[in-house]
Parts: sequence; structure tokens; C-alpha cells
Amino acid sequence: MTKLEEKTLRSEEIFSGKIISLHLQDVELPNGKQGKREIIKHPGAVAVLAVTDDKKIVMVEQFRKALERTIVEIPAGKLEKGEEPALCARRELEEETGYECESLELLTSFYTSPGFADEIVHVYLATGLTKKENAAALDEDEFVNLEELTLDEAEQYVKEQKIYDAKTIFAIQYLQLQEALKNK
Amino acid sequence: MTKLEEKTLRSEEIFSGKIISLHLQDVELPNGKQGKREIIKHPGAVAVLAVTDDKKIVMVEQFRKALERTIVEIPAGKLEKGEEPALCARRELEEETGYECESLELLTSFYTSPGFADEIVHVYLATGLTKKENAAALDEDEFVNLEELTLDEAEQYVKEQKIYDAKTIFAIQYLQLQEALKNK
Repeated sequence: MTKLEEKTLRSEEIFSGKIISLHLQDVELPNGKQGKREIIKHPGAVAVLAVTDDKKIVMVEQFRKALERTIVEIPAGKLEKGEEPALCARRELEEETGYECESLELLTSFYTSPGFADEIVHVYLATGLTKKENAAALDEDEFVNLEELTLDEAEQYVKEQKIYDAKTIFAIQYLQLQEALKNK
Repeated sequence: MTKLEEKTLRSEEIFSGKIISLHLQDVELPNGKQGKREIIKHPGAVAVLAVTDDKKIVMVEQFRKALERTIVEIPAGKLEKGEEPALCARRELEEETGYECESLELLTSFYTSPGFADEIVHVYLATGLTKKENAAALDEDEFVNLEELTLDEAEQYVKEQKIYDAKTIFAIQYLQLQEALKNK
């Protein structure tokens, strides 16, 4: 077994923003040589696979500046400082879609880009949905269109690359797996 | 339907590194107001779900400086400039594991963190594996331990958070789905 750990020799914060910060590190590699690492720190995020009583998946279409295009995603948002992920999931679901949920279950958590970022996403399943009368508002720089898709429609969106991100493709595959297990 | 597009008013490159670059943008939001976006540009990556003839999943344990820990992942690596993703997949598989594959099939592509990064990962299924005698070497700052896991073992690794990243959790769920569909 190769030794794998890398020791930080020097770390410099190059940028600290609203969402991310960038750190450059000099490290000692397992073989004793030196290397450089570019690290993005992120507060972490939640995503919510919300399924209505009539089996529609609640999605939001959103313009993603990093991609210079809109994509359709399950509702998601970053954790506020000290915020409990399950509370964040309920908050983001309400803000982005107007839905409250009775039941919230953690499906998985994953790092999105371990090669350069510490962002983790906690993916929840939300059921028992009801529309809230006076739902909390979106952030002032957030704009979304609500879409409610059947699983077939969602699979079609993946083929058409309207759905194109890791958390949403994971969520759709999760539902495909549940269907397959149910029909066994 | 709300208009969603955001227009770039100004874009500044704050940092350009070996793996990522960081850009700060002033944008015009759909409502005419101004906002700021923090954008990471990344060349994109491939990941390879490589399954041996006796149904073992080929994984690599790797120290991830961004996470300050090792995790176990399917082999992956970033695209070189102009590199065709399928060729990159074969190259990374050989470099990280010593395996060549007969068959390579694109399973999906996804953006990992559309909120702030343009990184896309192309996930391939590789089968017909054979160990190569004089396999290409790892990058000079790359150190990995090879692991070959059954699907049950991989599921256990997910529970223990040894496997903890989006592409690998997607890949395992893909195999679970294939199993469930086969047994129907």
C-alpha cells in the first residue's frame, strides 16, 4: 500500500467571495517532493428530490452563469453558516417551489468535485407535498421557472441535455432504481 | 414563464492555475438589476466505471487535498487540451489502474457544480479488461492504491463514507439499477 497523505507546507487565500474561496497550497507529496494544489472552499449544499402524490418530480429551470445556459435541476441551495442540512432542504424547497413537505429523508451525501473543491451536497427525498399559501421568497438574485415532470419526461430531459447536472441525474436514477425494485 | 438569462457586464480573471481559473463577473439579472457571479472554469474530466470479467469494480484510493482525507473513487482525470473524452478515459484507466479495456461506452455526462463551476464529467463503462504489462505511469503528483470491489463491498464503502463522491456514487447506483433490471 502506497502512503497517500499530503502535508500542507504553505496555504494562501487568493480570494474570498460570497459563495466560494480559493486557496493555493504548497504540499509535501507522499514521495517527499513538493507539489501545488488549487483548492476551492464552499459551505456545502442541499438538494431535494421532491415527488408529488401523483408521482411528479418537482424541478426548477434556472440560468447557470457558469454554463451560460439554463438547465433543469432538482431544487437546491447552499447551506447558510451553521444551518442544519434538513432545515436548509425544507427552506430551499419552499423558496424555489412553494412546496412544504411532510416527510424528508436523506438519500445520500456526496462531494461534487473532490479534485479541487470541498463542496458536499446532501440529497433529500421529500414527499407529502403541499403548496404553501405565502411561501418564502427566493434570494434577490435568484430566478427560476417551476416544472413538474413524470419520470419518463425527466428521462427525456436527460437525453436532451436539459437536465445535465450530477445531483439531478443521481436523483432520476434513484427513482429508476426504486421502480425497478418495486416491479421485481 | 420568467425570463432567466443573465447578461455579462464585466468579467475579470482573478486567477489562472494548472487545473482551474477563477472569474468574477458583474451581470445584469433578468429583472434589470445588477448581480455578481463567482465562476470557476475547468477543462472537464472523465471517469471510468471499469468492471472486470468476474464482476469486480476497479477503484482507486486517493488523497484529496481539498477534503484533507483519502476517498475511494472510480478512476478519473481531467481532459488535456483538445483531448477526445473516450481517449482520455482509456488513458486515465491505464495510468491509474494498469488496465486496458476492449469496450468503452458513455453512460452519461454531467456538470458537477453548476452553481459556480463549468466542470463536466463524462462517465464511461469499461469492460473486457486486461492488465497491461508496461502500463503508462501516473502524473508525477499522483499517488493511488488500487482496490477491486464487489458491488456489495462498494455499497458498504458508501455506507462507511469511504466512497463519498458524486461520480462514484452515480456509478454504483448504475450497477444497482442494472442488477435490478436483470432480475426482473
